[in-house]
Amino acid sequence: GFAKIDHHRSLRLGLPEVIYAAGKTPQQVGEIFYRMAAAGSDVLATRADHAAWEAVRQLIPHASYHEQARIIGLRQNALAATFGPLAVICAGTSDLPVAEEAAVTAEYLGVEVERVYDVGVAGLHRLLAQGDVLGRACAVIVCAGMEGALPSVVGGLVAAPVIAVPTSVGYGAAFGGLAALLGMLNSCSPNVTVVNIDNGFGAAYVVAMMMRS
Amino acid sequence: GFAKIDHHRSLRLGLPEVIYAAGKTPQQVGEIFYRMAAAGSDVLATRADHAAWEAVRQLIPHASYHEQARIIGLRQNALAATFGPLAVICAGTSDLPVAEEAAVTAEYLGVEVERVYDVGVAGLHRLLAQGDVLGRACAVIVCAGMEGALPSVVGGLVAAPVIAVPTSVGYGAAFGGLAALLGMLNSCSPNVTVVNIDNGFGAAYVVAMMMRS
Amino acid sequence: GFAKIDHHRSLRLGLPEVIYAAGKTPQQVGEIFYRMAAAGSDVLATRADHAAWEAVRQLIPHASYHEQARIIGLRQNALAATFGPLAVICAGTSDLPVAEEAAVTAEYLGVEVERVYDVGVAGLHRLLAQGDVLGRACAVIVCAGMEGALPSVVGGLVAAPVIAVPTSVGYGAAFGGLAALLGMLNSCSPNVTVVNIDNGFGAAYVVAMMMRS
Amino acid sequence: GFAKIDHHRSLRLGLPEVIYAAGKTPQQVGEIFYRMAAAGSDVLATRADHAAWEAVRQLIPHASYHEQARIIGLRQNALAATFGPLAVICAGTSDLPVAEEAAVTAEYLGVEVERVYDVGVAGLHRLLAQGDVLGRACAVIVCAGMEGALPSVVGGLVAAPVIAVPTSVGYGAAFGGLAALLGMLNSCSPNVTVVNIDNGFGAAYVVAMMMRS
Amino acid sequence: GFAKIDHHRSLRLGLPEVIYAAGKTPQQVGEIFYRMAAAGSDVLATRADHAAWEAVRQLIPHASYHEQARIIGLRQNALAATFGPLAVICAGTSDLPVAEEAAVTAEYLGVEVERVYDVGVAGLHRLLAQGDVLGRACAVIVCAGMEGALPSVVGGLVAAPVIAVPTSVGYGAAFGGLAALLGMLNSCSPNVTVVNIDNGFGAAYVVAMMMRS
Amino acid sequence: GFAKIDHHRSLRLGLPEVIYAAGKTPQQVGEIFYRMAAAGSDVLATRADHAAWEAVRQLIPHASYHEQARIIGLRQNALAATFGPLAVICAGTSDLPVAEEAAVTAEYLGVEVERVYDVGVAGLHRLLAQGDVLGRACAVIVCAGMEGALPSVVGGLVAAPVIAVPTSVGYGAAFGGLAALLGMLNSCSPNVTVVNIDNGFGAAYVVAMMMRS
Amino acid sequence: GFAKIDHHRSLRLGLPEVIYAAGKTPQQVGEIFYRMAAAGSDVLATRADHAAWEAVRQLIPHASYHEQARIIGLRQNALAATFGPLAVICAGTSDLPVAEEAAVTAEYLGVEVERVYDVGVAGLHRLLAQGDVLGRACAVIVCAGMEGALPSVVGGLVAAPVIAVPTSVGYGAAFGGLAALLGMLNSCSPNVTVVNIDNGFGAAYVVAMMMRS
Amino acid sequence: GFAKIDHHRSLRLGLPEVIYAAGKTPQQVGEIFYRMAAAGSDVLATRADHAAWEAVRQLIPHASYHEQARIIGLRQNALAATFGPLAVICAGTSDLPVAEEAAVTAEYLGVEVERVYDVGVAGLHRLLAQGDVLGRACAVIVCAGMEGALPSVVGGLVAAPVIAVPTSVGYGAAFGGLAALLGMLNSCSPNVTVVNIDNGFGAAYVVAMMMRS
Ligand SMILES: Nc1ncnc2c1ncn2[C@@H]1O[C@H](COP(=O)(O)O)[C@@H](O)[C@H]1O
Ligand SMILES: Nc1ncnc2c1ncn2[C@@H]1O[C@H](COP(=O)(O)O)[C@@H](O)[C@H]1O
Ligand SMILES: Nc1ncnc2c1ncn2[C@@H]1O[C@H](COP(=O)(O)O)[C@@H](O)[C@H]1O
Ligand SMILES: Nc1ncnc2c1ncn2[C@@H]1O[C@H](COP(=O)(O)O)[C@@H](O)[C@H]1O
Ligand SMILES: [Mg+2]
Ligand SMILES: [Mg+2]
Ligand SMILES: [Mg+2]
Ligand SMILES: [Mg+2]
Ligand SMILES: [Mg+2]
Ligand SMILES: [Mg+2]
Ligand SMILES: [Mg+2]
Ligand SMILES: [Mg+2]
Repeated sequence: GFAKIDHHRSLRLGLPEVIYAAGKTPQQVGEIFYRMAAAGSDVLATRADHAAWEAVRQLIPHASYHEQARIIGLRQNALAATFGPLAVICAGTSDLPVAEEAAVTAEYLGVEVERVYDVGVAGLHRLLAQGDVLGRACAVIVCAGMEGALPSVVGGLVAAPVIAVPTSVGYGAAFGGLAALLGMLNSCSPNVTVVNIDNGFGAAYVVAMMMRS
Repeated sequence: GFAKIDHHRSLRLGLPEVIYAAGKTPQQVGEIFYRMAAAGSDVLATRADHAAWEAVRQLIPHASYHEQARIIGLRQNALAATFGPLAVICAGTSDLPVAEEAAVTAEYLGVEVERVYDVGVAGLHRLLAQGDVLGRACAVIVCAGMEGALPSVVGGLVAAPVIAVPTSVGYGAAFGGLAALLGMLNSCSPNVTVVNIDNGFGAAYVVAMMMRS
Repeated sequence: GFAKIDHHRSLRLGLPEVIYAAGKTPQQVGEIFYRMAAAGSDVLATRADHAAWEAVRQLIPHASYHEQARIIGLRQNALAATFGPLAVICAGTSDLPVAEEAAVTAEYLGVEVERVYDVGVAGLHRLLAQGDVLGRACAVIVCAGMEGALPSVVGGLVAAPVIAVPTSVGYGAAFGGLAALLGMLNSCSPNVTVVNIDNGFGAAYVVAMMMRS
Repeated sequence: GFAKIDHHRSLRLGLPEVIYAAGKTPQQVGEIFYRMAAAGSDVLATRADHAAWEAVRQLIPHASYHEQARIIGLRQNALAATFGPLAVICAGTSDLPVAEEAAVTAEYLGVEVERVYDVGVAGLHRLLAQGDVLGRACAVIVCAGMEGALPSVVGGLVAAPVIAVPTSVGYGAAFGGLAALLGMLNSCSPNVTVVNIDNGFGAAYVVAMMMRS
Repeated sequence: GFAKIDHHRSLRLGLPEVIYAAGKTPQQVGEIFYRMAAAGSDVLATRADHAAWEAVRQLIPHASYHEQARIIGLRQNALAATFGPLAVICAGTSDLPVAEEAAVTAEYLGVEVERVYDVGVAGLHRLLAQGDVLGRACAVIVCAGMEGALPSVVGGLVAAPVIAVPTSVGYGAAFGGLAALLGMLNSCSPNVTVVNIDNGFGAAYVVAMMMRS
Repeated sequence: GFAKIDHHRSLRLGLPEVIYAAGKTPQQVGEIFYRMAAAGSDVLATRADHAAWEAVRQLIPHASYHEQARIIGLRQNALAATFGPLAVICAGTSDLPVAEEAAVTAEYLGVEVERVYDVGVAGLHRLLAQGDVLGRACAVIVCAGMEGALPSVVGGLVAAPVIAVPTSVGYGAAFGGLAALLGMLNSCSPNVTVVNIDNGFGAAYVVAMMMRS
Repeated sequence: GFAKIDHHRSLRLGLPEVIYAAGKTPQQVGEIFYRMAAAGSDVLATRADHAAWEAVRQLIPHASYHEQARIIGLRQNALAATFGPLAVICAGTSDLPVAEEAAVTAEYLGVEVERVYDVGVAGLHRLLAQGDVLGRACAVIVCAGMEGALPSVVGGLVAAPVIAVPTSVGYGAAFGGLAALLGMLNSCSPNVTVVNIDNGFGAAYVVAMMMRS
Repeated sequence: GFAKIDHHRSLRLGLPEVIYAAGKTPQQVGEIFYRMAAAGSDVLATRADHAAWEAVRQLIPHASYHEQARIIGLRQNALAATFGPLAVICAGTSDLPVAEEAAVTAEYLGVEVERVYDVGVAGLHRLLAQGDVLGRACAVIVCAGMEGALPSVVGGLVAAPVIAVPTSVGYGAAFGGLAALLGMLNSCSPNVTVVNIDNGFGAAYVVAMMMRS
């Protein structure tokens, strides 16, 4: 076959391999999804558009599609929300797809999620009003584009690790997320780490790892 | 001579030309300073080190040297602090030379200055405690390195224009101020404009222009 | 709802929040516009295409669409042109959308605007012929792509702050506005500040702030 | 004073503020260290050279200097190694200062550390021989310069979060750590997050946060 | 004619010129292909889409189209697989087109190829299981996107030259293959050289040169 | 010997090879200078510091050193100023070394030079006052750092080719001359071409070529 | 009107303004073309697609369209080919549109052109065979993408100025012409100057200027 | 100890590990050199300055120092020049240290070397005169800075693989070797591969691998 599925991983890492649908044909996504489902594990496909979803649904009708998160999921083992809570925060409305990718992934990996959206730093009162959620979070994922300032501010408010996700939201000197990425890497809050631009999935995965290990 | 001093400028622009000492020998700085002083105008030299100061002091003993700001100044006309107040804010201790360059320049240009230093976003309470100063400022200059998030936060708190000065403070992916510069250019607070990295002088000059025009 | 509108802002900052339509569906733009209009404030949506306009017009028939500026506006409070005048200058015909975004925004924020278009530095006599406008302006917005030289030239001619807007006009080594942006940040005219590439809106907003504070 | 120490932080975040000695004079480092020590908390200063150490030792003789890590530390409260273990891994001999900055910081923050040094990917058997350490680690910090490939390889071997620290080791197209940074951000192992180039301190801090929250 | 075919090359270099179809119309590809075929040499066209293939097939019905490799080929002289073996390795499914471009080109140039696909470093056991292939290879081509770590790992395992091909697979900070390219250029395995992003053809060509000279 | 002097060049190109002293020891500069002088041609060495000059003077006492231009020259054939005039213009005092490198080179190549220095665009009247020089110039070299706007302005005023030389003058976002370079490449004046940052020599050489061919 | 045509230019510069059609609607191109034609001057529009050509042809039926060069031209004054010859050289077939933009522009500006196409450095004999053309050229324009090496090679063969035009031909690390641009700026042949990526027009314009001044 | 020497490598790869002296103290270089020598293998240390050489000479008096190549070597096994010949070519005098690093490394690895220095493309006749050497070479290493055009030209002349080494020679837009690196990666000669900037060692190592495998 064209793909060597890493069935091993769930043994080695405690979490299943996840299908990255972006570079694949709907047929390929469908086939890999089917083979992993047949092997009995939970299955996730990220960056899945409607065509991929149609291909999967054909083969596995009881899978679910999370449209805004662009995720196809199948839960076969009991992964109740036994870890957390994790706060998923985003700065503006346009960051929603990335934030949802993080939130849905985390939920599939057994983490309880609390969403705090549209609380960018230009109107700080919106964030400060969320003290309760921030206070009880074991970890925080912060998604922001443009100048990417939100993780630093959140980092100064919580006693928990912050996973910063720069998004490609913005124009001009945002350079497709580069401005936000550099900002987050240089955060003056020392509890901030960073994943790739728009990588909501990776942020959630690493949080699940933290909570399990 | 090697330099065509723009004596015209103070007529044209209402503010005198300012000597940029960085690329010049102490002798050159001294000579230009002397010629401008002789013409009767106020004189400022920025980025002036001790050698430049020695050269000027020899010729114009009543000039002053502002060490942290690296500015040599001479006040000959009555420029009392009739404009303002301007708040000059900086994020960390290392941003002080840039902030002082802005503050001292503004004072020479007749603007009253209130300094608010070391109030970076990782400890937000320090900034929020300065509500009074922020409330009365006609304009705000914000100097910050690393991720450069402070201007966006300040921009959301004040009803005044914010001039953001990225500083070259930081290391690694700060890239000599580039991270802060990009962050500030992409600020989600719409009242923020930006000057060159470490350009405290320019920020103050433009504020003086605003207040006079 | 998907958006936390910052109704607070007009109290805090003296100017209403502005809808950035680019990343939103027509339906979302329509709904936010409607809710802000219902709250009684003036409403602006920038980067609005015809689809967004159709959605808004359906709900608020007396709103206006400024096609070249890509702005939808609704005036509900008396904001006569009581500030200014502001000169909005652009270098070439292709910079017009950005210049109009600045000019229309400024007018909605109560600033009187004088437009000076297609006066790039390759034919300097066209700019020099506008001495009157330059002479009476309290502030100047200069939009230019390619090498972005116009703000420096204008900066040397006026006794007012210059807000430079780099545009993405050009090709090759223009790198989508980067060449103009870097040029403007390094202006040898000290009364120049800079906003993001193509950000006519931000330039106008900061000018309105200046004139009010 | 020139610095607003964030004494608050240890309440808010559960961990004390840490002095970044790089941009400060020895006198400033000494004074801040003294004030924090007097306040009764544990104190750390990173990027401290011998001059800073001399200044601190004068005031607080029972502080310690970790030369390779460039850290000055003072332990006043009982922070036994109650969390962990954390594996700190580095690729080559030249990455040692960064790895030590991470390891020493973690130890001060109460985390037990196991060091695995000089196990770069060009000789994989050296890493594979460390299966025991990798197997018991709750978290792993991986420091690597040049192509920065080590975190991806480690990430595939452990069921724990990996904090990747790009180092500025290398020459030519390493561009001061940029190559390693980009590599780590694009890791195909989803349990990898990234901090700034050479930021061993930040990696350790975030791990301590994870283990405590 | 619009093109000066370098018929000379096969004399000078021992290998025929190869048509780069990307910037050409189907007609141009067809015509050049026809002229080279008529001159009696083997002919290859890379980056050929279906339209180019249609144009060639019209004129030379016995040519072949390798769809995944996007190569049109015509074998007229006996170039049996007399050199090698060459191992062509790729990290993930999305790197397949580039790997196939390398593999098919090499086969046309008389090199025996062994394909080892989807063995990225996040699941190292997949690569380590290929010891036999690696052991007998005279040269190895490694195609990888994202962080581009695979060539360094392979380089440490084989006693043969490794030609690394960065691919444009990835998103965000992958910057279209730049991250992989920089990683490969900084490989700590000294037997690694690099060709342009996505240049599977060039990698194969240089290997054929090595084996013949 | 370590160098293959291209004695041929003066036959082929009509102008002698020129020694680039920057990467060479004083001894090497001296020896090459001596061998070229012995061959009877005019000799130039650029980027020559005092040590190089001492080494040459030892061997060829009648050579000359142009300190500000950092050029050592020896005139052996009659190269009166029979071409031109060429105007060499610079924006600020700090651009002088580059402008002098251009002017002195041109003079050695037989071109008459008129110098117009310190006429940056922030004070346009200084340039406009030079109408006579601009009017009679057959070619113009314009050296400018920071935003590099001067060549565009000059280009619009003269009916002659403009060779733009970006200089590394500036700080922060000047990025060592990159801002000026990009600006000049995107000039809206179509009679502008560009040479490398700080390459006054190349600009003069190409002008000499133009005038002779 | 939306455009201030610089009718002045042909007096000032000896050559007419040229319409840059890229950012304009067909209607705008048509109208400006018509107004300039009515004023009696020669007219050129570059970057003109078929739609622009249709709009112009409607109004000025005797204008001509040069498809490969993407130029619309109208000759009204006697500009016979009285200058030159100019050699226009390109490296590969894909550089043809840029080379033709240069050649056609030059011809309209009264310069005789000799075309030498598809003579890239990988097959040097093709270029060396053109000794005659190179020998009689008063100036040379060299268009090349990818590594952009051709201008350096040509520069070493001719006693004339070389205008290098980097093209956006290539992929991967060609970065849209950046690799060629940087290569040309660093040419070791001192008679090379550079214009913007793909700017065949500018190269021709500057050559016409040279020949006339 | 601080270093895990990969003694294995010479078994695995057929060639010994090589010490990279740049980031190490003279003592460390001395100690590693000694331990490897004691193990009986040939030993090489690259990027070794005089201090490192003194430290090694103390311990291993019969080692040799190649000053221009900055290499310390010790031959203990019979590695006569049994492979090759390899041509090592460089463009200019300033590229000599990199070319020598390649040549000396190759000789230690048993490869016969022919040096062809100072044959840059601006004077092509110098290279063309070396037809014999080029004709018999089994592989060619080409070192060039500035525009890095030489490998493409050489690549078109030889029927052998070309390893291109960009050097950091140049200034301004050479950006420390970046221009040459990009040029070489985009070579239109398909037999060219590339190593890191200034990495003469790596180029030689890969050639030795080719010849042995
Ligand atoms: N054209 C624009 N460019 C940059 N910012 C804008 C623009 N239009 C509106 N904004 C800002 O975008 C924010 C609204 O973003 P959102 O919540 O996503 O609608 C407000 O703070 C506005 O000030
Ligand atoms: N090595 C380091 N790298 C990055 N941040 C640091 C480092 N050491 C301390 N910090 C942070 O820098 C801040 C102190 O900065 P300052 O107020 O300038 O001393 C604290 O928030 C620390 O968490
Ligand atoms: N292909 C081209 N590339 C660069 N500049 C051009 C081109 N064609 C025309 N121009 C210049 O563009 C200017 C006209 O711009 P516009 O006023 O926007 O039509 C004139 O100064 C021309 O010299
Ligand atoms: N000049 C050099 N450039 C790049 N890599 C080198 C160089 N010299 C030695 N190496 C490699 O560096 C590694 C040794 O690194 P280290 O363990 O730090 O001594 C070995 O794998 C060598 O192959
Ligand atoms: Mg919002
Ligand atoms: Mg502080
Ligand atoms: Mg125009
Ligand atoms: Mg090692
Ligand atoms: Mg896979
Ligand atoms: Mg001046
Ligand atoms: Mg060809
Ligand atoms: Mg030479």
